[in-house]
Amino acid sequence: MRATIMYGAGDVRVENVPDPSILEPTDAIMRVVRACICGSDLWPYNDMAKSETGQSMGHEAIGVVEAVGNAVSTVKRGQVVVMPFAISDGTCEFCKEGLPTACVHVAFVGNGGMNGAQAEALRIPFADGTLYALGVSEADARMPSLLTLSDVMGTGHHAAVVARVARGHRVAVVGDGAVGLCGVIAAKRLGAEQIIIMGRHPDRIALARAFGATDVVSERGAEAVERVRELTGGHGVHSVLECVGTGDATFTSVEIARPGGAVGRVGVPHYEAIPGAQKTFFKNVTVGGGPAPVRAYIKELLPDILEGRIEPGRVFDRSIALDGVPDGYRAMNKRESIKVLVTP
Amino acid sequence: MRATIMYGAGDVRVENVPDPSILEPTDAIMRVVRACICGSDLWPYNDMAKSETGQSMGHEAIGVVEAVGNAVSTVKRGQVVVMPFAISDGTCEFCKEGLPTACVHVAFVGNGGMNGAQAEALRIPFADGTLYALGVSEADARMPSLLTLSDVMGTGHHAAVVARVARGHRVAVVGDGAVGLCGVIAAKRLGAEQIIIMGRHPDRIALARAFGATDVVSERGAEAVERVRELTGGHGVHSVLECVGTGDATFTSVEIARPGGAVGRVGVPHYEAIPGAQKTFFKNVTVGGGPAPVRAYIKELLPDILEGRIEPGRVFDRSIALDGVPDGYRAMNKRESIKVLVTP
Repeated sequence: MRATIMYGAGDVRVENVPDPSILEPTDAIMRVVRACICGSDLWPYNDMAKSETGQSMGHEAIGVVEAVGNAVSTVKRGQVVVMPFAISDGTCEFCKEGLPTACVHVAFVGNGGMNGAQAEALRIPFADGTLYALGVSEADARMPSLLTLSDVMGTGHHAAVVARVARGHRVAVVGDGAVGLCGVIAAKRLGAEQIIIMGRHPDRIALARAFGATDVVSERGAEAVERVRELTGGHGVHSVLECVGTGDATFTSVEIARPGGAVGRVGVPHYEAIPGAQKTFFKNVTVGGGPAPVRAYIKELLPDILEGRIEPGRVFDRSIALDGVPDGYRAMNKRESIKVLVTP
Repeated sequence: MRATIMYGAGDVRVENVPDPSILEPTDAIMRVVRACICGSDLWPYNDMAKSETGQSMGHEAIGVVEAVGNAVSTVKRGQVVVMPFAISDGTCEFCKEGLPTACVHVAFVGNGGMNGAQAEALRIPFADGTLYALGVSEADARMPSLLTLSDVMGTGHHAAVVARVARGHRVAVVGDGAVGLCGVIAAKRLGAEQIIIMGRHPDRIALARAFGATDVVSERGAEAVERVRELTGGHGVHSVLECVGTGDATFTSVEIARPGGAVGRVGVPHYEAIPGAQKTFFKNVTVGGGPAPVRAYIKELLPDILEGRIEPGRVFDRSIALDGVPDGYRAMNKRESIKVLVTP
């Protein structure tokens, strides 16, 4: 089958690899119906050292179950399923508590010897715990929105949950990538009154407004902080959704949080320590977040997609076949595209 | 009147100062019945630069109201009141939300030109919002425990609340000072199943056990982390109460937190950034805390003291008159005493 391998910064290839097969009785094989490129894929696209063996890419997919191992009991052949980016067994204490990204068997798709999802097919360990049957056909028109349950919509929602967004709150979303845009959807869905999107790309800002953003701050650094204070009666926002992952973005997040507020971090941190130990302390600001337990959020978010109340699939502004994936990376990296949908 | 002034590291004096008087119509004058020395007073006791004017000391007190300004309506002359360490107006949006330490009029007793509480008397700004009438006489035997509502019991409780202590949880308390010991009380009160005290002073450990600690970890650094993991089935604790304020203690706190857990910081941070940006992220550990809104906690904690369910006053293991304050600092700094009670 065909699959996407990255061999170093800027070097993405679609190649023939062995077809996946059942290795453990808890495995399933899934034919990929839709996949996509993630903002987090751009980190290695920019800084990966050259590798002879390469790195299998992609961790978001919807597929059709083609085969299941003997121990798989809930997932069935022929089902259309969404695959969260993290493998989880569904039975350990962390899964039961709603944190499948801390599962004792957690693995991240595309890592640790597992194939990635920018491919024609995929082996899924712990299929019962990981996959979620959508109850739709693979021709369903809502496929782009359903695909976001695999990562970005659940991740934006996690940022909002950790940042304790609630009815009437003032919210800021730091970062206008696909996750930030889904964060806007999540904040509005949870009842935020004011939603400030912090970003500077006109296409993304327009989409953020369509999703419910009430204000735009395109400044950066101290000017951005000042602007948010002006927009919030001087005190800052109750909830900050940090959707970038840099130290600067986190510093800004801490600065614009209102006393007693919370920062939900979902940008993979490319910094060593959380800035503002004293500022967060004297403001009683809470900093939380991490890899989103998207599997646990599907049940809550799916009805809103099926019934048309939210449409996170609008973050996809380019659609390509598998052979177009290398150009898809280029386009996302150049900010020509917000997020690229892949139909293998 | 007599009051305590610090003129530099190790240089604490009890001197004559002008009697306090009503300056604003919202002020009250309080005669101090009990005050005490706080662990946070030891920071300047160890590192304060020499000062000609000196720094007025003390921020915990119970007193009797001797006079009130024209605009004071709920606080009455003759009442026995507890004074939280932070002045708050009781009417702003932050006070209404239960975060009086972020009050728009917040001031910290002993700072900003205000006299401290290790004194015979004190002017209290925003008396209605700040003071809390206890409904007891000044001869009440529970005076030491009631005094802890001024800071340490409320602060330990805040650490526990922010660390989301709940029934059945595993909890670690980092630091065996008076705040850490009150954190043990708070954790037990909120239903923790396992309470690990991390400290190494035999007298404090004994008191922690009396307050409900189930395990003791006296190691430090990596060994302490390993020991907590052994005690918790390998995953760490749900809730960490950080009651020290150093970068090392905070690093330990982050390390011993279970995935999905929370760290409540109440030790005034003597570090610039919160260590473990990636560790907290990949474990989805939340870090929060700050100056405890003790005024907002009195209503919840007071009945437990009055009815004898908790006895935080046991942290006082030395009792002195005002002239003994300099020696009280010395004793606490040498760890000869856990916390020193002052009867002016």
